[in-house]
Amino acid sequence: MRVIEDDRRFLMREDPMERVRRMLQRRGEWLRGRTGDNVTQMHYARLGTLTGEMEFAAGREGLEPGVVRREVAEGRMVIPANIRHVELEPMAIGFAAKCKVNANIGNSAVTSGGREELGKLKAAILAGADTVMDLSTGRDIPQIRESILRHSPVPVGTVPIYEALERVPSRDPRDLDIDLMLRVIEEQARQGVDYMTIHAGILREHLPLVKGRLTGIVSRGGGLMAGWMLHHEKQNFLYTHFDQISEIFQKYDVTYSLGDSLRPGCLHDATDEAQVAELRTLGELARKAWAMDVQTMIEGPGHIPLDQVAHNMRLEAEICHGAPFYVLGPLVVDISPGYDHLASAIGAAAAGASGASMLCYITPKEHLGLPDEEDVRQGTIAYKIAAHAADIARRRPGARDWDDELSRARFAFDWNRQFALAIDPETAQHYHDETLPQDSMRSAHFCSMCGPKYCPMETARAALAEGNGDKKR
Amino acid sequence: MRVIEDDRRFLMREDPMERVRRMLQRRGEWLRGRTGDNVTQMHYARLGTLTGEMEFAAGREGLEPGVVRREVAEGRMVIPANIRHVELEPMAIGFAAKCKVNANIGNSAVTSGGREELGKLKAAILAGADTVMDLSTGRDIPQIRESILRHSPVPVGTVPIYEALERVPSRDPRDLDIDLMLRVIEEQARQGVDYMTIHAGILREHLPLVKGRLTGIVSRGGGLMAGWMLHHEKQNFLYTHFDQISEIFQKYDVTYSLGDSLRPGCLHDATDEAQVAELRTLGELARKAWAMDVQTMIEGPGHIPLDQVAHNMRLEAEICHGAPFYVLGPLVVDISPGYDHLASAIGAAAAGASGASMLCYITPKEHLGLPDEEDVRQGTIAYKIAAHAADIARRRPGARDWDDELSRARFAFDWNRQFALAIDPETAQHYHDETLPQDSMRSAHFCSMCGPKYCPMETARAALAEGNGDKKR
Repeated sequence: MRVIEDDRRFLMREDPMERVRRMLQRRGEWLRGRTGDNVTQMHYARLGTLTGEMEFAAGREGLEPGVVRREVAEGRMVIPANIRHVELEPMAIGFAAKCKVNANIGNSAVTSGGREELGKLKAAILAGADTVMDLSTGRDIPQIRESILRHSPVPVGTVPIYEALERVPSRDPRDLDIDLMLRVIEEQARQGVDYMTIHAGILREHLPLVKGRLTGIVSRGGGLMAGWMLHHEKQNFLYTHFDQISEIFQKYDVTYSLGDSLRPGCLHDATDEAQVAELRTLGELARKAWAMDVQTMIEGPGHIPLDQVAHNMRLEAEICHGAPFYVLGPLVVDISPGYDHLASAIGAAAAGASGASMLCYITPKEHLGLPDEEDVRQGTIAYKIAAHAADIARRRPGARDWDDELSRARFAFDWNRQFALAIDPETAQHYHDETLPQDSMRSAHFCSMCGPKYCPMETARAALAEGNGDKKR
Repeated sequence: MRVIEDDRRFLMREDPMERVRRMLQRRGEWLRGRTGDNVTQMHYARLGTLTGEMEFAAGREGLEPGVVRREVAEGRMVIPANIRHVELEPMAIGFAAKCKVNANIGNSAVTSGGREELGKLKAAILAGADTVMDLSTGRDIPQIRESILRHSPVPVGTVPIYEALERVPSRDPRDLDIDLMLRVIEEQARQGVDYMTIHAGILREHLPLVKGRLTGIVSRGGGLMAGWMLHHEKQNFLYTHFDQISEIFQKYDVTYSLGDSLRPGCLHDATDEAQVAELRTLGELARKAWAMDVQTMIEGPGHIPLDQVAHNMRLEAEICHGAPFYVLGPLVVDISPGYDHLASAIGAAAAGASGASMLCYITPKEHLGLPDEEDVRQGTIAYKIAAHAADIARRRPGARDWDDELSRARFAFDWNRQFALAIDPETAQHYHDETLPQDSMRSAHFCSMCGPKYCPMETARAALAEGNGDKKR
């Protein structure tokens, strides 16, 4: 039952710091001697070298290490593993791997600080997040990031333009420039950030396409870059200086998460010209990154009607040459503020089932405020369910083993095992005990829904035993 | 904006009793003179008569009344409207109509009573449930049902075998017989029940097919009938006496909800021989019911991997000749006790998008206990989101209007209108106010997620205004 154990490691309630400590020495050994200006997993994969990270990630996936090497070499899989983030347990994101979940954390100018953010990190990891992004835009960005990196066994992503803007003396986004961006990117890379969102795909010529939209631009970085281009009447400096960013990424093995600045912000704007035009640029940039051995993911929407989700996955695979697609939800309705984790889990499961490699969670607080620790937990659980549904739908080997185990425990009325196998044991037990709290109920062949006489599993089992069904015929 | 208004009537927080009172006189007029042994909507539809119910239901759907008449005549749509349930606001269930949501309420031997059940009815209706089923199996079944019927503006369904079993003196399901069942069915029909689950599709020859399953039979009525058949070594009496049941249904216009006794209880058992064999019998029974002008829905799973959901919808449409499919979830994972409303909303949205006519909700308490009022509310909201996602995916005319309205309010930072348009205004406002409670924040062009500087909608709007984007090029 290896796969179950890996899927459910997070249920062991292991402190993330334990995992960090266990990994430090091992990763240190793998990294020994890995020097030079090009140390990416893609570089080694293309040389035919099997790295420790590839082997470790393959083990977690139940894949042959050679398959991981080949997928990384061809750009269809990434192993976001900055050589300075030694605490990391390497993992793989790509079509051949299990569907992954990212949890966004980070403070804002309005609320939260370092201690709260570490609490969110722990909540996300304990609930099963495969990566986290630190989207801090408030105070102490570098300190919060340092603390997250040193405590995180999962890859950490950032959006460096947020810190860059904090460091513009005027705080005016029109005063951003490539030199500052490159400085911030290099500092974050040196600190150990595993992947970074870079809004290089939004171009001057795309902006008129936004005109007919209901909600304009809803990417924070994308909005900043649009403003910069319109003010300066120049092309996006992240696009024109893309290779300089790639040089930094090469040196530390930072993975690109190419931002979709023009993702739709509502169903009305879904799969429109602006979105698809930017996607074409992202496909072009993926090839440029690969030419320098830099690992690359493509970010995707957002808000997409359910009948367009699979189409969007196919479109990305085609236009972006199979680069892993990392989608945000998508939400399949716009009318669910307060329940957007649920509404987007519908789109996320559909996206995962039809090819998305990683699902960026949405919490119940989306569109309303900054998520707190409980929101992070709820969002992560919703998305682990969506990702697991996708893995089953895509028939990943062994994906259903966990479900079958729980179903066996259910049919056997082994309540304690059902709780233990549940995605959130405490909640499952709490709901059960609300109406049947006594200890004796742990061996009951019913719950309060049907009571002792109507449990269908019990009725049918007894009947089939009596009738000895199949033998009589 | 008629469609929005209809979709969102439930947000007006109108007391269900108000709706009941308003309807009583109107429906009384329609029903005047509708006597005889065959008073079904299907009967009138086939005669070419447009009933008040058809016109009213068509108005709610934004369909031509003639379309509703034709769909009802051909069995692809039902209007569950017992002539004795005068309080009812008629509604349509079928492929040409919007996707509907059913909420199960009812007590069990272990918990809940009449007052709690009325509370659940109200919670379900205020959250937008299109029908409710009273699945009571505890004390006072007829009294609870009477109270629900007299307070319900939505169709009420039941599973008469539960009451029948309560009336077997021995309480032993093996002592059930067709005479008692017909008595109970007639009494419930006379009381005004709009649709009934009848487990007539499970046959003796299906039982050996259950052998390889992980969770056997998980339908309560199905388990009882299996036990009866195995004990008596006879065919299912609901199957052999089907036409006698249909005669009662004809007289009061009760709609069949043909129970799927052999629905899978876990992913392992999905779409297996047992399930499909019973579905074939249900298709045969639908034709028998239609031959007597009795309206019919088919009940469906249950637990189905996401990649098999659309296939199951096509299978039913084909095997059951287009009869409306009324599915339970389905759950797309088994590992989510405590979150089964969310996990099954994924399957429900996919089912609705690919043809299911009604979605039976699953609450967070599923598999763990009897839902209480808050569980009913949470389950109903989750399923209204799923059904709405399905309507958008199926491009029902006007389905997205509500979303566009909310998106416009969002882009305009009209917070009060966003809350008012949300599927659950209180929850949306509560989440927002957790971090920005001051009254002044009602006009803020940001929330606590991004703070005042980073709201992308605001940044981009300002930038596009400054750059005057599209005109310059």
